[in-house]
Amino acid sequence: MYFYKEDLINMIVPDKPDPGAAKVLQETLGGQFGEMRTMMQYSFQSANFRGNKKQYRDLIRGVFLEEISHVELVQTTINQLLNESGEDAVGNGGTNGAPLEVATMSANPHHYIMAAQSSLPVDAGGNPWTGSWVYSHGNLAADLLNDVILESTGVLQKSRIYEMSSNKTFRETLAFLMVRDNAHQNAFAKALETLGVSWGKLFPIPNYDLNKYPECRKYVDLGFHNAQFNFRLDDTMIGQVFQGVTPSRNGGDLSVTPPPNGYAVPDLPEMPNEHSPGLSDLNS
Amino acid sequence: MYFYKEDLINMIVPDKPDPGAAKVLQETLGGQFGEMRTMMQYSFQSANFRGNKKQYRDLIRGVFLEEISHVELVQTTINQLLNESGEDAVGNGGTNGAPLEVATMSANPHHYIMAAQSSLPVDAGGNPWTGSWVYSHGNLAADLLNDVILESTGVLQKSRIYEMSSNKTFRETLAFLMVRDNAHQNAFAKALETLGVSWGKLFPIPNYDLNKYPECRKYVDLGFHNAQFNFRLDDTMIGQVFQGVTPSRNGGDLSVTPPPNGYAVPDLPEMPNEHSPGLSDLNS
Amino acid sequence: MYFYKEDLINMIVPDKPDPGAAKVLQETLGGQFGEMRTMMQYSFQSANFRGNKKQYRDLIRGVFLEEISHVELVQTTINQLLNESGEDAVGNGGTNGAPLEVATMSANPHHYIMAAQSSLPVDAGGNPWTGSWVYSHGNLAADLLNDVILESTGVLQKSRIYEMSSNKTFRETLAFLMVRDNAHQNAFAKALETLGVSWGKLFPIPNYDLNKYPECRKYVDLGFHNAQFNFRLDDTMIGQVFQGVTPSRNGGDLSVTPPPNGYAVPDLPEMPNEHSPGLSDLNS
Amino acid sequence: MYFYKEDLINMIVPDKPDPGAAKVLQETLGGQFGEMRTMMQYSFQSANFRGNKKQYRDLIRGVFLEEISHVELVQTTINQLLNESGEDAVGNGGTNGAPLEVATMSANPHHYIMAAQSSLPVDAGGNPWTGSWVYSHGNLAADLLNDVILESTGVLQKSRIYEMSSNKTFRETLAFLMVRDNAHQNAFAKALETLGVSWGKLFPIPNYDLNKYPECRKYVDLGFHNAQFNFRLDDTMIGQVFQGVTPSRNGGDLSVTPPPNGYAVPDLPEMPNEHSPGLSDLNS
Amino acid sequence: MYFYKEDLINMIVPDKPDPGAAKVLQETLGGQFGEMRTMMQYSFQSANFRGNKKQYRDLIRGVFLEEISHVELVQTTINQLLNESGEDAVGNGGTNGAPLEVATMSANPHHYIMAAQSSLPVDAGGNPWTGSWVYSHGNLAADLLNDVILESTGVLQKSRIYEMSSNKTFRETLAFLMVRDNAHQNAFAKALETLGVSWGKLFPIPNYDLNKYPECRKYVDLGFHNAQFNFRLDDTMIGQVFQGVTPSRNGGDLSVTPPPNGYAVPDLPEMPNEHSPGLSDLNS
Amino acid sequence: MYFYKEDLINMIVPDKPDPGAAKVLQETLGGQFGEMRTMMQYSFQSANFRGNKKQYRDLIRGVFLEEISHVELVQTTINQLLNESGEDAVGNGGTNGAPLEVATMSANPHHYIMAAQSSLPVDAGGNPWTGSWVYSHGNLAADLLNDVILESTGVLQKSRIYEMSSNKTFRETLAFLMVRDNAHQNAFAKALETLGVSWGKLFPIPNYDLNKYPECRKYVDLGFHNAQFNFRLDDTMIGQVFQGVTPSRNGGDLSVTPPPNGYAVPDLPEMPNEHSPGLSDLNS
Repeated sequence: MYFYKEDLINMIVPDKPDPGAAKVLQETLGGQFGEMRTMMQYSFQSANFRGNKKQYRDLIRGVFLEEISHVELVQTTINQLLNESGEDAVGNGGTNGAPLEVATMSANPHHYIMAAQSSLPVDAGGNPWTGSWVYSHGNLAADLLNDVILESTGVLQKSRIYEMSSNKTFRETLAFLMVRDNAHQNAFAKALETLGVSWGKLFPIPNYDLNKYPECRKYVDLGFHNAQFNFRLDDTMIGQVFQGVTPSRNGGDLSVTPPPNGYAVPDLPEMPNEHSPGLSDLNS
Repeated sequence: MYFYKEDLINMIVPDKPDPGAAKVLQETLGGQFGEMRTMMQYSFQSANFRGNKKQYRDLIRGVFLEEISHVELVQTTINQLLNESGEDAVGNGGTNGAPLEVATMSANPHHYIMAAQSSLPVDAGGNPWTGSWVYSHGNLAADLLNDVILESTGVLQKSRIYEMSSNKTFRETLAFLMVRDNAHQNAFAKALETLGVSWGKLFPIPNYDLNKYPECRKYVDLGFHNAQFNFRLDDTMIGQVFQGVTPSRNGGDLSVTPPPNGYAVPDLPEMPNEHSPGLSDLNS
Repeated sequence: MYFYKEDLINMIVPDKPDPGAAKVLQETLGGQFGEMRTMMQYSFQSANFRGNKKQYRDLIRGVFLEEISHVELVQTTINQLLNESGEDAVGNGGTNGAPLEVATMSANPHHYIMAAQSSLPVDAGGNPWTGSWVYSHGNLAADLLNDVILESTGVLQKSRIYEMSSNKTFRETLAFLMVRDNAHQNAFAKALETLGVSWGKLFPIPNYDLNKYPECRKYVDLGFHNAQFNFRLDDTMIGQVFQGVTPSRNGGDLSVTPPPNGYAVPDLPEMPNEHSPGLSDLNS
Repeated sequence: MYFYKEDLINMIVPDKPDPGAAKVLQETLGGQFGEMRTMMQYSFQSANFRGNKKQYRDLIRGVFLEEISHVELVQTTINQLLNESGEDAVGNGGTNGAPLEVATMSANPHHYIMAAQSSLPVDAGGNPWTGSWVYSHGNLAADLLNDVILESTGVLQKSRIYEMSSNKTFRETLAFLMVRDNAHQNAFAKALETLGVSWGKLFPIPNYDLNKYPECRKYVDLGFHNAQFNFRLDDTMIGQVFQGVTPSRNGGDLSVTPPPNGYAVPDLPEMPNEHSPGLSDLNS
Repeated sequence: MYFYKEDLINMIVPDKPDPGAAKVLQETLGGQFGEMRTMMQYSFQSANFRGNKKQYRDLIRGVFLEEISHVELVQTTINQLLNESGEDAVGNGGTNGAPLEVATMSANPHHYIMAAQSSLPVDAGGNPWTGSWVYSHGNLAADLLNDVILESTGVLQKSRIYEMSSNKTFRETLAFLMVRDNAHQNAFAKALETLGVSWGKLFPIPNYDLNKYPECRKYVDLGFHNAQFNFRLDDTMIGQVFQGVTPSRNGGDLSVTPPPNGYAVPDLPEMPNEHSPGLSDLNS
Repeated sequence: MYFYKEDLINMIVPDKPDPGAAKVLQETLGGQFGEMRTMMQYSFQSANFRGNKKQYRDLIRGVFLEEISHVELVQTTINQLLNESGEDAVGNGGTNGAPLEVATMSANPHHYIMAAQSSLPVDAGGNPWTGSWVYSHGNLAADLLNDVILESTGVLQKSRIYEMSSNKTFRETLAFLMVRDNAHQNAFAKALETLGVSWGKLFPIPNYDLNKYPECRKYVDLGFHNAQFNFRLDDTMIGQVFQGVTPSRNGGDLSVTPPPNGYAVPDLPEMPNEHSPGLSDLNS
């Protein structure tokens, strides 16, 4: 069973609305290599786990638990980027004075038609998330290899999306997730090390220096790239795998740690243009 | 943030393998009105909630938390129905002696090709779950009405699926979920009552008597149809809405309660025909 | 604007339930070359028609109007094939006594989970109808060629589906539609003749003799293969195109005629196992 | 059977081309809560209706008939918005002088590649319409609740899309449909009242005042929000349900009335850049 | 079996990056009437060919072989249009200095998130290619008619896409393919002539004069519109069909000829912003 | 450019029709890890290759070339399994004497409705192939890791599908492809070795002994698991990577060799029940 405390796993840094940034950040939420995919893939892999090497199941489930919080973090970041973005539309080239004109331009129109300026389970192109992306074949070596490539592609995409806007809300969340994807890449790469693989200098993929991203540095200093947060209320064997020298050429030792202190969820204001929540007078 | 204790929210009752039952039960996991839909819909509605009437957000989030456990319960039930179902295939009409022949017949072939005899994020027809099913429009009245119809359709479908096999593993999980869907139907119907609606005798939908399902009776006796389990580790305002007389004609008072004691997750045996997990000799 | 009289365009011949026949007949309703496709394709082609050669627009719209009735006829036929098919399931090989067990076997499970033993907007494989099949490119020669191939494929598929069951309900509807698809093939082929094409002996596609299908003969005797029913309440220029010698090697002259006398829509009984309609006691 | 008179159900008000408005208006045609969905959903619900309470079937079918006209109205409105929009592209920011450059910018490129500057069966994001959206579960209470939420969401989305452009062609059609969606919301809400529900002040959803939309006022003055147009050429029992006090807090009495006088369908000019219809010299 | 020589079937003419042109040119690669569709459709039709009239199978396979080269040509053209397009983004209206900002505007964001500024198996709207578009029904007349309409629609779309940008890289590839689609239209139209059809002046569709496209003229002068390139290393009966007077009103005789001399594949530079290929230091 | 010689890359062993085997073998053709995916993935990765380490591009393209032949081999195998399978249907449980009744049972109905008893671009569940499965991210390490997992999953699935029927046609093709997937797994694993990875005993995935499959042994004896067939008519640098000790624990040295001698393509008989090819009398 799953329990909750209303805390975000990382902070939301305020900046201006940026509907184009919100559009591309959807890839990180509902895209083929986004957080909904990692969440559901690890949910299926851990529930469907066969055999008695349960330290691997606990590893996969441990990452799964964090991904639920990542989904919430990206939802909240997209919401922050879209908040009051309609009113700004005119300034972005609008000429006819319609308050939601931005939706006819380069924004994702469903952010305004469906979601009342908040997040959707779709990718950067507006394609809905699909279960066919989940890989859970029950062969441990194959599942772990797929998990490594899923995390590697996730961080590769984020390093590209990061270059698409200088918005601070956008970049802070991407930077935090890039560091965490690194840790998860390490987790699955390490699991394959226990099966006999030696990775050389292959990781991290992509071949970057996290410290060159100014927002990443503080998370690296906290050791978040080599830590696995533990969200279990009972015992776990995750530490049997996630330990020892990191498989990354950045060095350091892997360790299981408590989650970070949580951050407050920003309040979302009412949006009368969108009739959201549209409650006034209803329950008076 | 989300925390976990390795407990199933309900028991798994053992019975024979039943791949046809597993195929149709997928609707309850990955179908348009299944548990993945409810989980993700309430995730988006609660994260995207606008305005200060946060008792409604807490209600939606509270149901979301339980749905994560429902996903796990249905995954585990499907796994139990599929376990060792390949070997039984010959007896189901197979004539050529191939151990996985059942996959060429009325089973879902992907249960054997992809999932190594375990669950998949697809519906009863094998169509993958899609994010386009998630409804989160940010208008509270519209969202709640959609939630009511989602829960009503979920239980309507389960009452039909229940008639498709007499397998005990299958029926026990369906019966538990029918009672819980009833509670969630009550939750959203009650929320609409606070906005002024009076439902008459409309609920429950469908118009059935839960007590006629022998497996349901014990859950009704425990009051599970009028209870909302609380999975919060911090405070919640859910009780401001989920209280008082039930909107169902079955009567009783709504109350927020602790979750049930958990049940052990059954071990899944190795499946050599499927090379799952396929670890032998690898890490020796 | 569109007007309606509650008459089916052809009779429903009673026979036993046949869920397998219902499954494959879905291709004719919701498949890529089924009646929903023809209905929507001609709707878009006629609404989007450019230029002043409106006799072609009237031809396309004229066929569109009939297709709405074809959709209703196939829906009704599938309903007849599914009616009380659940109870028969045990006799079809069921062993565990569950009343809807047929849904776990070779039937389309959504016929029982979603549709309460009635029709769905999906094809024979259970894939939902999609708008991407609609061809409306605005170039008249290309649109008409696509319409010819759409009708030809429709009748080719129906001639194959006809061989999948000897059920009389099933075959009567298929036979009627094969004759009408022939007429529509003639309509679009004739329109291309007015643009200069000479078809030789190419049509009908497939290269069959309608009179060899016993159910077809009476419709051929009525001249339905060379007639276009007129559903317009105002004037139409369709007769400027649909006239003269048929482009089919079967010979005869094309003519616009009134629609057939309608047939009664069969009543669908209540289905308590499916809680359909599930009204008892609700509005008492 | 279905009959037709070449009349639009409402007027097309001329204004400048607006390809961005055409893009978002596609949601109202081919989107999850657009007119194709309502048309097909009510087609299936009425054809699949079980039991003898046929006044409800007649109500659902009555709305279905109007939706066919709505599809035609939105197709025609999109065509008007796209007409000659290519030539205007350069003025919208184009720099290289290519006549259809607008298709590389914020327009839906398929409006120019496929549809020759006319409508498509897709939503505002370019996703094709899919049959999986159709809800027809055969349980009357569930079907009616889904119909209420479908109409409510339709009008909620239209009220948002309305804010995306001040184009008069665009807003007039949206305003007319908002009033009609209100009537249909009333129809299904009233049907649920006959099953015992009392809605309080919940409707209309969204919680707006139609009279604040200048284009809506004349339709409200005509009573279109409380009228159901009757497109039947034979008898109907729709008036047994659609009568008495409206369930909307706007007040008034429901009544079945003849359809409005029709409006002429605008001619669509030839589009030589798109080879549409491309007939010149072909049949000379 | 299939053999390869690293030669492009036509030249790549250099010009500036043009991400909007790359976006719409995707229709020609991964769209419903693009080169992936023609390649796979003719692959299935030739592999599934029934009966002994193998001259038709050889004709279909002959076109299939050329389509593999067309896929490569369009991939390479899109790559050329995207190369270094990120850095130009700021000049296209970007204001925040992010190097890949163009991805948040009217470009296809997946060109930058997934493909590292190269081609994707998707259409101009970003929808992925799907196998449901492949038509291979095994009836030769129906298959050939579908092939004619596929080629006609392909060239119709290309003639529209051509008008979307004046970029030389873009237009040269489109012009070459328009001439070749003409030849393939002739091939399938001729095959239908051998079955008795006489086309009059219907072809080419669309009804254009290739010589009015300056880039096309040289290919017409080389006779490419009436030639079928032969990629077989063994004998073929294609010449039994592809011979004699063209079915196009442009006149000339059809003949099977050797393929053109190949053209060099341009080198794609490294793209450090995208970590592509990201090899530095890895294998040192 | 691509050239062709009409030779299959392996033999087709005759056996009885087996429509259930044909249905599941579709996974190997049109499934997420089937031959169409490998063909298109390597097509995109080689065309989109960046940078000057062209030995890797040549490796990827070399495997691409073989995959085109694999597509043809699986198409042909499915055709052989379906040939005359309709007439056998009655014996498979049919009771009503309809010649294509098998299509209403556990077969893929589209094999009979669309494909005239031949192959389709769909998977074992009937879902069409989609371009969203193609992975081509331009980062060489990520692309190669994905290629390894693609080949590993392909062979894992084939080892499971092999257990679904003892049909000889079916098993011979699967066995040949399992050995070749092994070689391709080795190719990409070796490429990663040149980037510094050391695989230990991880490969082959799954952890099986090819020699235990009787059909595989002869291919292993020929060394096909350590060979890369060369389909280039010009020079290639593939041998710079595909050389030296295999990364598989089965041992041996990798070497580039000529392709096998080809095998004749079986003739497909006419299928009058399906009007395929349906030519008789047409061109007389």
